[in-house]
Amino acid sequence: MKTYNGIVSTNIERLAALADGIFAVAMTLLVLDLRVPVLEVIHVSQPLWVSGAAQSEQVLLDLLIKLAPRLLTYFMSFLTLGIFWVAQQTQLNHFDRTNRDLTWIHLIFLFAVSIMPFSTGLLAEYITFRLALVIYWLNLLLLGVVLYFSWRYAERNDMLKEEATPEIGKLHKRRVVAYQALYAFGALLCVFNTYVSIAFIVLLELNSVIAPRIWPLDRF
Amino acid sequence: MKTYNGIVSTNIERLAALADGIFAVAMTLLVLDLRVPVLEVIHVSQPLWVSGAAQSEQVLLDLLIKLAPRLLTYFMSFLTLGIFWVAQQTQLNHFDRTNRDLTWIHLIFLFAVSIMPFSTGLLAEYITFRLALVIYWLNLLLLGVVLYFSWRYAERNDMLKEEATPEIGKLHKRRVVAYQALYAFGALLCVFNTYVSIAFIVLLELNSVIAPRIWPLDRF
Amino acid sequence: MKTYNGIVSTNIERLAALADGIFAVAMTLLVLDLRVPVLEVIHVSQPLWVSGAAQSEQVLLDLLIKLAPRLLTYFMSFLTLGIFWVAQQTQLNHFDRTNRDLTWIHLIFLFAVSIMPFSTGLLAEYITFRLALVIYWLNLLLLGVVLYFSWRYAERNDMLKEEATPEIGKLHKRRVVAYQALYAFGALLCVFNTYVSIAFIVLLELNSVIAPRIWPLDRF
Amino acid sequence: MKTYNGIVSTNIERLAALADGIFAVAMTLLVLDLRVPVLEVIHVSQPLWVSGAAQSEQVLLDLLIKLAPRLLTYFMSFLTLGIFWVAQQTQLNHFDRTNRDLTWIHLIFLFAVSIMPFSTGLLAEYITFRLALVIYWLNLLLLGVVLYFSWRYAERNDMLKEEATPEIGKLHKRRVVAYQALYAFGALLCVFNTYVSIAFIVLLELNSVIAPRIWPLDRF
Repeated sequence: MKTYNGIVSTNIERLAALADGIFAVAMTLLVLDLRVPVLEVIHVSQPLWVSGAAQSEQVLLDLLIKLAPRLLTYFMSFLTLGIFWVAQQTQLNHFDRTNRDLTWIHLIFLFAVSIMPFSTGLLAEYITFRLALVIYWLNLLLLGVVLYFSWRYAERNDMLKEEATPEIGKLHKRRVVAYQALYAFGALLCVFNTYVSIAFIVLLELNSVIAPRIWPLDRF
Repeated sequence: MKTYNGIVSTNIERLAALADGIFAVAMTLLVLDLRVPVLEVIHVSQPLWVSGAAQSEQVLLDLLIKLAPRLLTYFMSFLTLGIFWVAQQTQLNHFDRTNRDLTWIHLIFLFAVSIMPFSTGLLAEYITFRLALVIYWLNLLLLGVVLYFSWRYAERNDMLKEEATPEIGKLHKRRVVAYQALYAFGALLCVFNTYVSIAFIVLLELNSVIAPRIWPLDRF
Repeated sequence: MKTYNGIVSTNIERLAALADGIFAVAMTLLVLDLRVPVLEVIHVSQPLWVSGAAQSEQVLLDLLIKLAPRLLTYFMSFLTLGIFWVAQQTQLNHFDRTNRDLTWIHLIFLFAVSIMPFSTGLLAEYITFRLALVIYWLNLLLLGVVLYFSWRYAERNDMLKEEATPEIGKLHKRRVVAYQALYAFGALLCVFNTYVSIAFIVLLELNSVIAPRIWPLDRF
Repeated sequence: MKTYNGIVSTNIERLAALADGIFAVAMTLLVLDLRVPVLEVIHVSQPLWVSGAAQSEQVLLDLLIKLAPRLLTYFMSFLTLGIFWVAQQTQLNHFDRTNRDLTWIHLIFLFAVSIMPFSTGLLAEYITFRLALVIYWLNLLLLGVVLYFSWRYAERNDMLKEEATPEIGKLHKRRVVAYQALYAFGALLCVFNTYVSIAFIVLLELNSVIAPRIWPLDRF
């Protein structure tokens, strides 16, 4: 007798489309945290040579400087989401088909994506708090762990395309493990100061993005 | 003479793309309800061995614990949306084509999806109120009822693909009915306490997601 | 010599994908206007037979009843967006290709779609004000007018598929004109009362959705 | 030995889908800045011949007039996003495939897109401040610069389709440079007044949209 399991769609295209949608919304919602500061009194702009014009600009500059930590966390999260979008779609591209279990593994992955704007907002608001940083790191960890198991599941259930050789599989999994180890180390640095952690994670991500051929890390 | 009805697109791909978009936005908007609590005084983090550092972390922890009911309802709604996304796309995958009526049936389904962030926010804010739970359940019910009629409409108007045998149709419809009966029972449990209802629904959904081969329910 | 005009993409698929995305976001953003009322004192739910339990439920019910006008406008706008999504995708489905001009005509259409959550919120907040209703109607009018010109442009520049006969073209354009005339009449009814207008427009839209074969209007 | 670089997806369709999603969300989020003004006292509408009805409409009109600068910046940003959506998809349409570097170039482009609602909100709130205008212009500049380098990268790494001749490449790049020069000039006009800058940029964009065959600029 057939079960519901057996009739669930195996179409990987729709899963990829949902994923693109969720990433797109999460990446754009991040910016809602960059709330524009509201000023009560609006000063009409005057030609620059009129005295007084420069001072009111100064007020806005001060307000924007206060936004700097938010901009930093926003940028970090955009990098994070970009990295994991590339990672997920690289996986989906190697899958031959999906099934209900694999679909749910990726829905859990997308849950972690959708919660990223919250973790980011929390870290932005409490940037000096270790607890906020640890929660952000747990979010990163969840993304990595689910991605690792997604590949393993597909491997064991014979859902990979032919060109996805075991060598490629090892590369994938080793990369996840290596980066997660480094993220964990970065998070640990918060015993000194959360800014040290954030700087370490951002540099690690930038390395992952812009220097893939230079550092030894990319053997993985 | 031709009517507007006759020229409306029968392209099922576009309907699926709109559905993916609405699910993606609804799933990500849920998180907006997890509003980050705002703290007036920001304590600069000090090395952990400096006394005073631990106390301010405690303050944030307390604030986050207050968010727990919201996190629970958020998680429940993500599960709900995931389950119904799988269900809808399984249906669309079995349809051969659409027409104007079927498109509108699915637009009503998407209306129920788009209102889910509201029902969720209401339940999170009024988690001990039966009325909030009943409204949440009505939302669940609407999703199930529309999905049931969608299949019936497609069946009667000969819009199914050949591989969608009557057996598969029965499976689909029986599953919707069985789960809706259980959701209704769960909602009824609120005469005791809304938390009992919520726990029952979450367990039911987790069962639907992670244990499809173990429990007898999945004969359906 | 080639111009930028000549190299702009003629791929209609990407335009349709952007349109699906904007409709999906607009349809889901509408719900943000259904702001959950915040209650200061949370009453813990007690079994129904404990006196006092029923009263606090009553408080929530009263709050929700106050949301009714918002729910009405939300429902109306979902119908509106659904109707115009069907109309746009029916057009795109008949186009053979696009060019830069036609792409911009549809971007203006999408501008009118993206502004719909604002018009809806304005009408919900000022539901008894004629000015709010007139602005809503102008939004409806813009959607219709742009759609009309989109078809005319495609017709005159030979961008229709072969199956899009002149008869189909007439049907399309006549339908837009007939409905816009009725929307204008509905808007005019606001000289009596805005609720009369809203009821008329909602009934008109429901007719367009659920009764396409019964009323004479659907000759068009 | 294979590297991660070598296995990253080269599927340009998924990148285009993510881009459509981010543009769709950014374009629709802009409208959230058009916050509906809240009125304390709701006046029930009366037939127009009852005295007093006209006055309360006047109150709403006054509130809406105050929204005018926001509507202007909203419209400008929708134009900006439309122009860059057309530009990006024209590029993607000429690319044969992508790789990890090119994907990241476009993710940076999408970062600039996702930050546009913030720049717009800042300019709307501080429309008379030069600093707000300069930040908006930097956002425009980033969009242009990344698009320029995207094409150059694809050109040098042999990732263009055959029909993308060097002539087309020159056209693309020259157009970006010409418009960026004009945007920079427009931004400079803010030494007089920010409204002069905004008017110049809007006219430039309208020219780009509606008059591509009339002005000499479109030789480019």
